[in-house]
Amino acid sequence: MGALRLPSLTSLSSAAAAVPRHHLCRQLRLPLRPLSAANFSVQSSTVEKDVAAPAPELEQNSPKPKLQQEKDRVITPRSQDFNAWYLDIIANAELADYGPVRGTMVIRPYGYAIWEAIQEYLNVKFKETGHSNMYFPQFIPYSFIEKEASHVEGFSPELALVTIGGGKELEEKLVVRPTSETIVNHMFTQWIHSYRDLPLMINQWANVTRWEMRTKPFVRTLEFLWQEGHTAHATPEEAEKEALQMIDMYTKFAFEQAAIPVIAGRKSKVETFAGASRTYTIEAMMGDRKALQAGTSHNLGQNFSRAFGTQFTDENGQRQHVWQTSWAISTRFVGGIIMTHGDDVGLMLPPNLAPVQVIVVPIWKKADERTGVLDAASSVKQTLQAAGIKVKIDDSEQRTPGWKFNFWEMKGAPLRIEIGPRDVSNGSVVVSRRDIPGKQGKVFGISMESSTLVAYIKGKLDEVQSSLLERATSFRDSNIVDVCSYTELKEAIAQGKWARGPWSASDEEELKVKEETGATIRCFPFEQPQGTKKCLMTGNPADEVALFAKSY
Amino acid sequence: MGALRLPSLTSLSSAAAAVPRHHLCRQLRLPLRPLSAANFSVQSSTVEKDVAAPAPELEQNSPKPKLQQEKDRVITPRSQDFNAWYLDIIANAELADYGPVRGTMVIRPYGYAIWEAIQEYLNVKFKETGHSNMYFPQFIPYSFIEKEASHVEGFSPELALVTIGGGKELEEKLVVRPTSETIVNHMFTQWIHSYRDLPLMINQWANVTRWEMRTKPFVRTLEFLWQEGHTAHATPEEAEKEALQMIDMYTKFAFEQAAIPVIAGRKSKVETFAGASRTYTIEAMMGDRKALQAGTSHNLGQNFSRAFGTQFTDENGQRQHVWQTSWAISTRFVGGIIMTHGDDVGLMLPPNLAPVQVIVVPIWKKADERTGVLDAASSVKQTLQAAGIKVKIDDSEQRTPGWKFNFWEMKGAPLRIEIGPRDVSNGSVVVSRRDIPGKQGKVFGISMESSTLVAYIKGKLDEVQSSLLERATSFRDSNIVDVCSYTELKEAIAQGKWARGPWSASDEEELKVKEETGATIRCFPFEQPQGTKKCLMTGNPADEVALFAKSY
Repeated sequence: MGALRLPSLTSLSSAAAAVPRHHLCRQLRLPLRPLSAANFSVQSSTVEKDVAAPAPELEQNSPKPKLQQEKDRVITPRSQDFNAWYLDIIANAELADYGPVRGTMVIRPYGYAIWEAIQEYLNVKFKETGHSNMYFPQFIPYSFIEKEASHVEGFSPELALVTIGGGKELEEKLVVRPTSETIVNHMFTQWIHSYRDLPLMINQWANVTRWEMRTKPFVRTLEFLWQEGHTAHATPEEAEKEALQMIDMYTKFAFEQAAIPVIAGRKSKVETFAGASRTYTIEAMMGDRKALQAGTSHNLGQNFSRAFGTQFTDENGQRQHVWQTSWAISTRFVGGIIMTHGDDVGLMLPPNLAPVQVIVVPIWKKADERTGVLDAASSVKQTLQAAGIKVKIDDSEQRTPGWKFNFWEMKGAPLRIEIGPRDVSNGSVVVSRRDIPGKQGKVFGISMESSTLVAYIKGKLDEVQSSLLERATSFRDSNIVDVCSYTELKEAIAQGKWARGPWSASDEEELKVKEETGATIRCFPFEQPQGTKKCLMTGNPADEVALFAKSY
Repeated sequence: MGALRLPSLTSLSSAAAAVPRHHLCRQLRLPLRPLSAANFSVQSSTVEKDVAAPAPELEQNSPKPKLQQEKDRVITPRSQDFNAWYLDIIANAELADYGPVRGTMVIRPYGYAIWEAIQEYLNVKFKETGHSNMYFPQFIPYSFIEKEASHVEGFSPELALVTIGGGKELEEKLVVRPTSETIVNHMFTQWIHSYRDLPLMINQWANVTRWEMRTKPFVRTLEFLWQEGHTAHATPEEAEKEALQMIDMYTKFAFEQAAIPVIAGRKSKVETFAGASRTYTIEAMMGDRKALQAGTSHNLGQNFSRAFGTQFTDENGQRQHVWQTSWAISTRFVGGIIMTHGDDVGLMLPPNLAPVQVIVVPIWKKADERTGVLDAASSVKQTLQAAGIKVKIDDSEQRTPGWKFNFWEMKGAPLRIEIGPRDVSNGSVVVSRRDIPGKQGKVFGISMESSTLVAYIKGKLDEVQSSLLERATSFRDSNIVDVCSYTELKEAIAQGKWARGPWSASDEEELKVKEETGATIRCFPFEQPQGTKKCLMTGNPADEVALFAKSY
């Protein structure tokens, strides 16, 4: 089974080719015992013997695990091989694993908790803006997909088809939904009659299936989880407003929750969703400077309502086709978080989406220190938990504190609290930031007193959140080049950067850029420079600059 | 499309056969314009002209809808045809609609909101008891299903199979998950190594597919939503404890949240889940006195761990197979709520799971009363909302207050607040209970003052919640007959009741009962009568009484 599916699970990036398949496989599929401190790459000084943290050899009542033998479980340095690094992190942080079917993924609890945090935020926002959740069946008659011309063209190559049900060949093949516009319109046609039924604004959280050939955990899998919003309106203006509202919501989410400074804009005609009149997108720059399309919002115009006869009677008694939108964010976003913030040590999670915002590591040497330290740790945990902070104690006795420091840094927990016997007697704790390695990120003597501690930790979480966004923003900005000619564009792309330049050339010329450089128009950003512009390709007047990049 | 799938959507009940197919179809599939008050069956006096509520002919600035012509949209009386009544409620309350593929269901926002309330409660409880959410792929290699002998026997007749992916015939057919034990064990085998990895306790919220021949919205659909918990333990005792813990959680949920007085117990061998050593169940009595299996928890023993080689090294260094459980509650539960509490007027929702706990109906006659009434309604809404109560104002101007009263009674909202001009000047409101029709359920002059109103409404919601449970419990108890002989059992079942009697007979005799009476052993209840017992069938000594009933 394993051997059969491996080829498809290597990355799209050329770097991946350099990594032996065996290595990728073993990294991700072997039993993932937590890593030995000694086996991490040592860019950041994660074991600090000079302070409260004890040396790894500290006596604790644990059988010695055979960590020394597991030298192969290092995390590949990010700079050396971004794709191998990405897969290593997913394996070591236990975010996901491969499913038995080629290209499928099991989302493990720690990875799923990030998705749950995304859901919790967006679900509230969707409801606040008047959308209701509901659920559509995932089996769609094949004939539905064929009704909208560009839709079938876009999706038919990647459909999974159910042909047998209950032991019998089916009369009509069923499509396992790749997206739900067709079945949504089939139902909307039955529910919408007059302008009083509009706007109709719904959302569903669901799994979708696209038979992708080249897969990568989170970024592109045969089956993934997402939310898909679908709305119907009486006027094109309302539909446009809705499509823009939702891409704005995604943008705000990306900035404020995920600390990802996406660039929002409009897709080129070539890159527009199959069946949409206009597609808006948020584009994120990953750590390897490739772009990730992290969320989209489509103005569908009347394309689906015409194909499915979704009409309403307007206030003047006239029959009209509805104007529609759809918009989605998927588990791909988790991949975006990993690839935006992670470093050689491992994952680095934005506090607002981290399953564990604060990890508490109790430290003791002698048996008589144990109770005092564990009691203090437990009380700190309760204090923070009561204040709504996601906190966990790592009190396992099989691992040294040094090991735990590394483990939770690798898992990307934004803050660590260390409590040793000296801290207990001082009534204070040590707080370390994941985003600032070593002594610089460490503060001693923070009072355990509830209100002081809560205020301090909340403040620090906010600081880490802002700092991640700042860092990602400056990385992004230093890797976007303004270009005036195709030569400059090619040069920027060849350097692995994004190119931004005026564009009013044809679809053919856009495809030529893709063919020759590997870069595509990611979007025409909403934020546009002032002044007159000349198309970088043709020299003709251009209204807008476009953003070009290689992408996932 | 519609005609093709109708046969399967009629009910299993004999009553359904009496309802012309055309009628069932039209009831559920026609555009569901809200019903006219006049067209409701009139068991409860829902339009009360003698009190604050104005007569329907009150002038409001609405075009008169053509309600009089929609005489066919009545709700079939429950006593006349339970199945038709059930389908009418689902259609009229907009809980669900038929999907385009035979046997599939679209869960509409109001129905989905009930499912969300179920999720919110259970999700917290699962986490409190140490379970983590995660996600497994829905495509399972066909060979997996074949590994556990009784599992394949139980599930193979109802599988949906994907045979084509990305335009190509697949080498191995893929099963769209009917349940996930096989793929879970495949992954557990990779993750579990030593006793330190145990217990492993996870849950997923997912869709599942079973190619059922006879379907019914919520109760049995080709695709449904559920949560499935899966755990692995080091000892059989721990697995048994977990299986019992989860059925207890379901029982508590049913009683306290859904106001459904389920009977919890153990399934007979014949009725045990395909692949389980022991199945625990909660059985609910519907309004037609048929049993609904509303949730199950399985002790899987080592059946799947042996089939999939899921082993761990115990504390003595010995390799052992893990002991497992799985447990699930599905969208079927929504059907159980409808069929437990609904009456001729429509749905009746337990406050703890109602999407709208309080509906506020503003009432005015003259234009100059409008603002005052709407302001008061809005302020009442805000007050209640701030107190965590799910409240909605129905301020549409196209419908009369009388129409709204009926509509929201049909939708099952537990409480209604009426606010008219006289109420505004008195600073008070009128509160009506859904579960007590007419004047008896109506209280005048409840102060609008925040703390008074909130306390009053919370108290009333609790009362309604308790009252629904009491009513359902006394209905259940008056329909269970203690039997000592097969003759008595047959008589009870023939009367449509449940029969409870001592049982120690064979599987063959159990199947004979099913064949001859249509009833099955629903469970051996946990609560057993004291004293010695003789099997109702054989006269041999019996340890336990069993509960027999016809079921969905």
